[in-house]
Amino acid sequence: MGVLGSSSSSSLVVFLCLVLNIAVLCNGGTTSRYIRKLEEIEDMPLNSDVFKVPPGYNAPQQVHITQGDHEGSAVIVSWITPSKPGSNQVVYWSENNNKKKTAKGIVLTYKYYNYTSGYIHHCNISNLEFITPPKVGRDVPYTFGLIGDLGQTSASNGTINHYENNPHNGETVLYVGDLSYADKYPYYDNNGWDTWGRFVERNAAYQPWLFTVGNHDIDFNQAIGETTLFKPYTHRDHVPFKASGSTTPLWYSIKRASAYIIVLSSYSAVGRSTPQYYWLQAELEKVNRSETPWLIVFMHVPFYNSYVKHYMEGETMRVVYESWFVNHKVDVVFSGHAHAYERSERVSNTAYRITNGDCTPVKNQSAPVYITIGDGGNQEGIDNDMIEPQPDYSAFREPSFGHGIFDIKNRTHAHFSWHRNQDGYAKEADKKWFYNRVWHQVDEPSD
Amino acid sequence: MGVLGSSSSSSLVVFLCLVLNIAVLCNGGTTSRYIRKLEEIEDMPLNSDVFKVPPGYNAPQQVHITQGDHEGSAVIVSWITPSKPGSNQVVYWSENNNKKKTAKGIVLTYKYYNYTSGYIHHCNISNLEFITPPKVGRDVPYTFGLIGDLGQTSASNGTINHYENNPHNGETVLYVGDLSYADKYPYYDNNGWDTWGRFVERNAAYQPWLFTVGNHDIDFNQAIGETTLFKPYTHRDHVPFKASGSTTPLWYSIKRASAYIIVLSSYSAVGRSTPQYYWLQAELEKVNRSETPWLIVFMHVPFYNSYVKHYMEGETMRVVYESWFVNHKVDVVFSGHAHAYERSERVSNTAYRITNGDCTPVKNQSAPVYITIGDGGNQEGIDNDMIEPQPDYSAFREPSFGHGIFDIKNRTHAHFSWHRNQDGYAKEADKKWFYNRVWHQVDEPSD
Repeated sequence: MGVLGSSSSSSLVVFLCLVLNIAVLCNGGTTSRYIRKLEEIEDMPLNSDVFKVPPGYNAPQQVHITQGDHEGSAVIVSWITPSKPGSNQVVYWSENNNKKKTAKGIVLTYKYYNYTSGYIHHCNISNLEFITPPKVGRDVPYTFGLIGDLGQTSASNGTINHYENNPHNGETVLYVGDLSYADKYPYYDNNGWDTWGRFVERNAAYQPWLFTVGNHDIDFNQAIGETTLFKPYTHRDHVPFKASGSTTPLWYSIKRASAYIIVLSSYSAVGRSTPQYYWLQAELEKVNRSETPWLIVFMHVPFYNSYVKHYMEGETMRVVYESWFVNHKVDVVFSGHAHAYERSERVSNTAYRITNGDCTPVKNQSAPVYITIGDGGNQEGIDNDMIEPQPDYSAFREPSFGHGIFDIKNRTHAHFSWHRNQDGYAKEADKKWFYNRVWHQVDEPSD
Repeated sequence: MGVLGSSSSSSLVVFLCLVLNIAVLCNGGTTSRYIRKLEEIEDMPLNSDVFKVPPGYNAPQQVHITQGDHEGSAVIVSWITPSKPGSNQVVYWSENNNKKKTAKGIVLTYKYYNYTSGYIHHCNISNLEFITPPKVGRDVPYTFGLIGDLGQTSASNGTINHYENNPHNGETVLYVGDLSYADKYPYYDNNGWDTWGRFVERNAAYQPWLFTVGNHDIDFNQAIGETTLFKPYTHRDHVPFKASGSTTPLWYSIKRASAYIIVLSSYSAVGRSTPQYYWLQAELEKVNRSETPWLIVFMHVPFYNSYVKHYMEGETMRVVYESWFVNHKVDVVFSGHAHAYERSERVSNTAYRITNGDCTPVKNQSAPVYITIGDGGNQEGIDNDMIEPQPDYSAFREPSFGHGIFDIKNRTHAHFSWHRNQDGYAKEADKKWFYNRVWHQVDEPSD
């Protein structure tokens, strides 16, 4: 399938950082030590090549794709034309067939304080043949990239560069929230969403990026009268939420190859009787592990992380949903928010009954591994402060920028690796074999 | 001030129930024992006097009032005309002055599935002189009634009857959520909101009722395409949320006499970076205990209750806000949800850090007392199942229908009483002296 592309020939800014990596063992878990500048990072200058507007009047920009239905035979193609609506059609064809087809999309705009968006196009192309991605099936290999909290600094560019050049590059990106960081600018200047859209296009136009919302995507700014939550996000990034019975783009699910992927919202109500609670409860019952052996959940705020800045922020969701994750043998939960990397042991903390004192995480082979991967490199810089000593639930942690790869081999085995930006493209700075929690629930080796 | 009234001359249905009350001590707390029928209660028949439509074509019905600004010099008067908009004016005057004034209101309607509402009028009368309520001030005595989870059964009618006849009746009702239970009917038949409006008018037209939302007020029903949360509630019950800097009627605050009252939403997002979180954080800083010594919080779902049905449902909010309540010395927190009564000790549970094991509530004289008062008498019946043994945090609990009275005497002393429907009107089935947490923070006597 060919889709609208763009001519971004960015000369990549190389991200260099003085880092001394020494892995130390602490309470069984590993904390990588390092020397790193602490200051915040600036966004790349507006005249940077990565933000270049494509040539030609009203040329489509910020092209990005995502899955368009529940099963994976549809793709949503989104792009923006700056000056007028332009065409709302996408022309597509099979690799081995020159017969061209067209799909019609929608176009919308929004205002945010004194900013007016360009013309945002979303076109859902359905009934595609399964070549890439392959059809849903229980032994279908598939590789996901993990990126979070990216922003648009030279470090962000380093992350994308590193991901693109990873020889085991993913086929789809699971993006764990906090996209543009436009809210760091006066009046949450939404031009920052446009520069970000042009920046990530070089990957997001060719691989589906599946998003969830982070705190920097809420864009609630009462001082300037902007009180509609997630306004830029929900206009720019459409997701196939209706296909999974959701009533909002903030939570949804898809199947892809041998994985069932559930996307949650850390910034919506989570408690009993709320829509997200009912939806997730029903959703977990729907998962057929014979069809999709791998059950992956992602949301922005981690349940288990030991970085001080966002320590325990996930408790409000954990106390409601963790027991469901364990009961349904979720294989892995990905989150962002902490600007660093961390991988947990398989632990659960679900026995608490207020007065029984049972509130310490315990090893549990039915529990997910929790991976925090908010290390995309945004302008807020790295999160260096860690809870000491390293908690037992933490298997490996390091405050460096990077990305992750979750590489499903078959119904029983998957391999996860974490890639630090300043290493060679093939190097795995952390790695772990995942054994499927339904098909091969035995202890995994420590790497 | 005179306001629109109605001619409801309901012949009250007397609520009788075989009850054997034996107070037993258990772990320091008291559990009242009783024998009670377990079955659900039916709503009163539609031809009951309490639901009577007032005579005359298009006569105003469902009149209710609430505070209209932050300080208490305004009143919102709401009513519904069934057939056409009718007048949107309220005529009012001082008790000692025949000069009549008029205020203009708004009128709105809504549709819910196959139901179309009548014409809902809201009129905010401002710049009123302070007679009732008295002006805000730190030694101003004032009495609040507490009602929750009322519904519209014969038991509900018993609660209103009992409250009306209580010789120490409140001046304002703090209503802790779950109003009509119209969502128990097919298609969440909103006619149940109208009958409820007529039922409570006999009190709510004369005393301000301050509402928060319960789960039965969400009215999310995906099967019939009704996915806008709180639609009937937000159309029918207006609150002065903008006056306290809130952006939604779901959380707001008011001052009244010597009390500062904060209303929260159990069914909205509560975590860091969400609007309710930011609002509450700023709100607690604004409270001036020299002006309003009594700091009262109410929301639907309790932090501390030991009834099985909703045990620990408040955890998702507790883990975020409890430390704020303690740090700001909130005097009392009222909730509903459990269909029963319970009063907690002054406890806090804020030392938990995942791996430190400190997760058991401890006595804390800076902590609020938590009172669960969801015992209004709705059709779901009483919650009989209790966590055994009675947890240490629970001071008194009894699954009977009733209401509460929080009677502020001055800046240092207030008296709380709980009134069981089947007792004489003056009897206090539970009681406790409250010493203000800022002005008189010493141990309170056990009653």
